[in-house]
Amino acid sequence: MIEGRDVLKVIEAMTPLYVALGLGYGSVRWWHVFTREQCEAINRLVVYFAIPFFTFDFTSHINPFTMNYRVIAADAISKLLTVAVLAAWTWCSSSDKSSYSWAITIFSLSQLSNILVVGAPLLDAMYGRWAQDIIVQLSVVQLIAWMALLLFALEMRKARGAASFAPATVVAGAGGQMVAPEPQQAMDVERNADVAARPTLGSLMKTVWLKLVINPNIYASVLGVIWALIANRWHFEMPRIIEGSVLVMSKTGTGMSMFSMGLFMALQDKIVACGPKLSAFGMVLKFIAGPAATAISAVSVGLRGDLLRVAIIQAALPQSISSFIFAREYGLHPGVLSTAVIFGTLVSLPVLIAYYEVLGLLS
Amino acid sequence: MIEGRDVLKVIEAMTPLYVALGLGYGSVRWWHVFTREQCEAINRLVVYFAIPFFTFDFTSHINPFTMNYRVIAADAISKLLTVAVLAAWTWCSSSDKSSYSWAITIFSLSQLSNILVVGAPLLDAMYGRWAQDIIVQLSVVQLIAWMALLLFALEMRKARGAASFAPATVVAGAGGQMVAPEPQQAMDVERNADVAARPTLGSLMKTVWLKLVINPNIYASVLGVIWALIANRWHFEMPRIIEGSVLVMSKTGTGMSMFSMGLFMALQDKIVACGPKLSAFGMVLKFIAGPAATAISAVSVGLRGDLLRVAIIQAALPQSISSFIFAREYGLHPGVLSTAVIFGTLVSLPVLIAYYEVLGLLS
Repeated sequence: MIEGRDVLKVIEAMTPLYVALGLGYGSVRWWHVFTREQCEAINRLVVYFAIPFFTFDFTSHINPFTMNYRVIAADAISKLLTVAVLAAWTWCSSSDKSSYSWAITIFSLSQLSNILVVGAPLLDAMYGRWAQDIIVQLSVVQLIAWMALLLFALEMRKARGAASFAPATVVAGAGGQMVAPEPQQAMDVERNADVAARPTLGSLMKTVWLKLVINPNIYASVLGVIWALIANRWHFEMPRIIEGSVLVMSKTGTGMSMFSMGLFMALQDKIVACGPKLSAFGMVLKFIAGPAATAISAVSVGLRGDLLRVAIIQAALPQSISSFIFAREYGLHPGVLSTAVIFGTLVSLPVLIAYYEVLGLLS
Repeated sequence: MIEGRDVLKVIEAMTPLYVALGLGYGSVRWWHVFTREQCEAINRLVVYFAIPFFTFDFTSHINPFTMNYRVIAADAISKLLTVAVLAAWTWCSSSDKSSYSWAITIFSLSQLSNILVVGAPLLDAMYGRWAQDIIVQLSVVQLIAWMALLLFALEMRKARGAASFAPATVVAGAGGQMVAPEPQQAMDVERNADVAARPTLGSLMKTVWLKLVINPNIYASVLGVIWALIANRWHFEMPRIIEGSVLVMSKTGTGMSMFSMGLFMALQDKIVACGPKLSAFGMVLKFIAGPAATAISAVSVGLRGDLLRVAIIQAALPQSISSFIFAREYGLHPGVLSTAVIFGTLVSLPVLIAYYEVLGLLS
């Protein structure tokens, strides 16, 4: 049973994040502290410094030898289940190309969440430090495995010339947590060019690999895991001088990343960029379909009690900003993803508290 | 007696600050992450958000009813002593105008230090939490009283048309912790205009007051003191939700402010902007004359032991960035101040450790 003071604790943990977001929003919309161009600088600061150190800090403190593989398996099964359903739907669908595109977006919406920045303080407030550890473990898997899969699917789509998408342009000052893509040359994808110039699987893998290795967040995560493996295998601690040096930047992570998200919101013309119907669709995928899929998988691998609750709640975290950055880069429904990030982040607090309350009622 | 591990503790506390500084420097000079214009955005972020929250966070936690007024008195006497000596020198000097200008700069160099960002972790590592509390108390006095005095002296000089200084221009991207001044209209100060249009003391006070109230760092400090007074008078604590909301931004203070200092260094053409002779003069004022004046005052008010040590070491902290910002705004020896900030910050670690060791030998 969740009591009032449990909920208060969650609100206390989450409000600061929204304050930072509000300061970012207000600094552009109300106080005019930053120009549009200057917002891009803050975004780069977050992408190249704040978030990589933040990710490394969390990741390097996990113990890879005592990870909760059941929760990770539940999460993986949920994602694979989604992939399987979407693949079947694409297969049966009459419009193969459009449904493949939508399958990618639906996967993004239902499965990729802003796991570390929002999830770590939230789950810590709800269930304690062990729950936060699980969040960190899941974030490593999301960054290394599922983001790679998403990139691969997007590159596949591009290679097949699935749609004559507009050339990607870098919107100045987006509050993303991934590297803003370099401006791509305009591409005139002709209807049947895909047959003539279809790249090999090898070259696709190489493109995906190159995109992954230049992503500071992903290599921060990989470095963190490598450190954690070494440190836990041979039982030694990080020297305090290195620990402190990581911490001085990682401490800026939460504040700067939410601030930058506020800048991103302020730069959008409207909060709901894709019409109410698509927005509602996105919200249903994010806050109902995703957690439902995870709940089924979690029960199937035998998770019970608080572990089950943690698994479900992490699936209902607001939309991953990275998934929007990719959507923009590949010209695949960026409006839908932008709405999911903005609107989803704003409504996530009551939704997550509702989940917390309802799940607390289950024995 | 200071042992090796005491020194190690200090190095451990200070290295992260230099790492953040190095990342800022490298991001411009080596990795080209930020353009010159973008550095200005980071500077604004630090000036308007990171440092005010950082200052408020520290200030609101002091207890104004148990402040160490002896240390504050020692510091004040040292500064008043300096002012008296400089005033006497200006009085006797043949070139009244130039010596008045130099008197201001000498006061800045010998008495105003980057007290909170560098001082708080340093004194905490050296002598523990009580020493950090004293640093916070001194920083409040420096911000509210001595910065106001400096501004007043600078406005006096401007009103007297003491020199035909170049109109101040805002250098993009300076890593300052004060508000970058608004571009001033070019002023053609004529030789004798000072007599004709000499402003009244009232209008001078008003100008100084207006500059103080638009300074986010100063009002963060004043708000912090007001909060501390109320909270300690009626014995209540800050609600956790407000505490957390302040913390989410204040935690970015150290990292962002040192990072921004690194950007500032990277944007300068050379580290020593004013010739070796003036640089050496600045270093002597900063690291020898200032601490010596404070030592005399501290002994005269009866400080002994660790309190005396803390009083002397805080006087040897690197140059206040605000004093450079003002120097630039008023066109008063900005090269000397810029060198004092940059070179002083770089050499301060060994100098401060030397002070720590030597003072440790005194019984």
